[in-house]
Amino acid sequence: MSVLVVGSIALDTVKTPVEEHADLLGGSASFAAVGASFFSPVRLVGVVGDDFPEEHIGFFRDRQIDLEGLQRAAGKTFRWSGEYHWDLNTRETRSVDLNVFEHFSPELPPAYRQSEMVLLANIAPKLQSQVLDQMDKPRFVIADTMDLWINIANEDLRALLPRVDLLVLNDSEARQFTKETSLIRAGRQIRALGPRFVAIKKGEHGCLLFGEGAFFSCGAYPLEDIHDPTGAGDTFVGALAGYLSAQSGTVGFAELRKAVVYGSVVASYNVEAFSLGRLRSLKREDIEGRYGMFRRMSHFEAFE
Amino acid sequence: MSVLVVGSIALDTVKTPVEEHADLLGGSASFAAVGASFFSPVRLVGVVGDDFPEEHIGFFRDRQIDLEGLQRAAGKTFRWSGEYHWDLNTRETRSVDLNVFEHFSPELPPAYRQSEMVLLANIAPKLQSQVLDQMDKPRFVIADTMDLWINIANEDLRALLPRVDLLVLNDSEARQFTKETSLIRAGRQIRALGPRFVAIKKGEHGCLLFGEGAFFSCGAYPLEDIHDPTGAGDTFVGALAGYLSAQSGTVGFAELRKAVVYGSVVASYNVEAFSLGRLRSLKREDIEGRYGMFRRMSHFEAFE
Repeated sequence: MSVLVVGSIALDTVKTPVEEHADLLGGSASFAAVGASFFSPVRLVGVVGDDFPEEHIGFFRDRQIDLEGLQRAAGKTFRWSGEYHWDLNTRETRSVDLNVFEHFSPELPPAYRQSEMVLLANIAPKLQSQVLDQMDKPRFVIADTMDLWINIANEDLRALLPRVDLLVLNDSEARQFTKETSLIRAGRQIRALGPRFVAIKKGEHGCLLFGEGAFFSCGAYPLEDIHDPTGAGDTFVGALAGYLSAQSGTVGFAELRKAVVYGSVVASYNVEAFSLGRLRSLKREDIEGRYGMFRRMSHFEAFE
Repeated sequence: MSVLVVGSIALDTVKTPVEEHADLLGGSASFAAVGASFFSPVRLVGVVGDDFPEEHIGFFRDRQIDLEGLQRAAGKTFRWSGEYHWDLNTRETRSVDLNVFEHFSPELPPAYRQSEMVLLANIAPKLQSQVLDQMDKPRFVIADTMDLWINIANEDLRALLPRVDLLVLNDSEARQFTKETSLIRAGRQIRALGPRFVAIKKGEHGCLLFGEGAFFSCGAYPLEDIHDPTGAGDTFVGALAGYLSAQSGTVGFAELRKAVVYGSVVASYNVEAFSLGRLRSLKREDIEGRYGMFRRMSHFEAFE
């Protein structure tokens, strides 16, 4: 089964206290699609300008990502530039140039409309809803969001939630959205707005997953060196979606737990290099190796 | 086997955004001894003044805590007063009156010197070393510490570390002590200073445990209502020590994982009421119930 991934495709400039790189492949859909491609075929919907390097198109193709839904528009590709603080936990956006992304309207090729697994990567909730309007009856819908939409498109986001099976957001966003200090109460409140499942990402502290009467706490992989956190959340949700897509039957809490771990594993690799650099050489066996490490670091009974 | 617990015994005044209570039983040794008493016999070394309520003595006795090492001095008991901010994650100390604790010198009754499990709860590292000077050959030594000692008694703390099997401290203290932003590197660096094991507490994000080539990440129990976080860390390390004390044989990483979970369980109960209120009615079956919940929330394979 294919995962349909819709989101932004960008050229990033990223500065850390140690390095700075320009014109990197970025955007929520790029990270998510590549993350998913380790587990499942992927269909990508997004837009790029006429300056978008062929090399990146080639990379998507090498990852077996279907590009029928990729729009090419006259003008420049979406550009984002950000700078990380010394601890790499916080960053400042230096500039955003929407360019061709400003008038992006996701249009699904007919073949995409029956996709059973849908990942609405981080874009405006109105566009996320527009994707669902074009779909037949997806088996499982995942949506990612961010503080910007909670601030400027709160109603659109709330309208989307009942159509979503899993909402993914980070801890500060969950607190901001619900006005709750307790992440446990925040997760529960967001579930009450519609999604059957909610995943709250906590950066270096891992991730919390909420379901009906079910709760899972996933630690973060103990990385010593992080080079570029950009796209970690997108890679996480992409790999999660890819793993779920490769499973048969209904998505239950047991599968979601494992999907969260696989998402964390692929994200942990992604931050080891700038942009998608580390994922270019990543192998499925690397993923399985680190998945085993997650088991050893999380289980405290019969853990070997 | 008994756990020897040495630390402070205090009368606390605690203010949260919702409530304020005065003259509560507090101090690192009180929380730690009661936490340990659910698993193992306990021997308590500390000092109280002549104002110390008999009721608290009765509570220790009810918990089967041996009080031969409890000193009673003329004067007032150590008093601490603190106020929590709205999110209960940060607090300010409003006042500290050392009183009889100012000249506390831990003296071990002869029967205590052969204790095999020693918990040096949070007091000055010089006093912690003084305890070890009086002991025969403990099987396992645990030390807790805090930012104050890292600041004003750094050399004493470093001198203590090679004599300790497990050092417990919180995340900001680990960063402060090592000048490392990565907790993974911080944990590794502290191990290099002597302790075979290091536990870094992360409050609402759980706990990380480091050993020789081994790592364990423990989530925090998903509490929705926290009433008083005072003593959570002391209760954690107390229950951890009590659990280890009740096991036979060498303490290895497998036992320590479980001990960390039991510590987290008892601490999660303790924060549900002011002072030691919740532990007064806590039963071993409650502990086992929540231990099972930790298993369900942490394991992602064969978790039922």
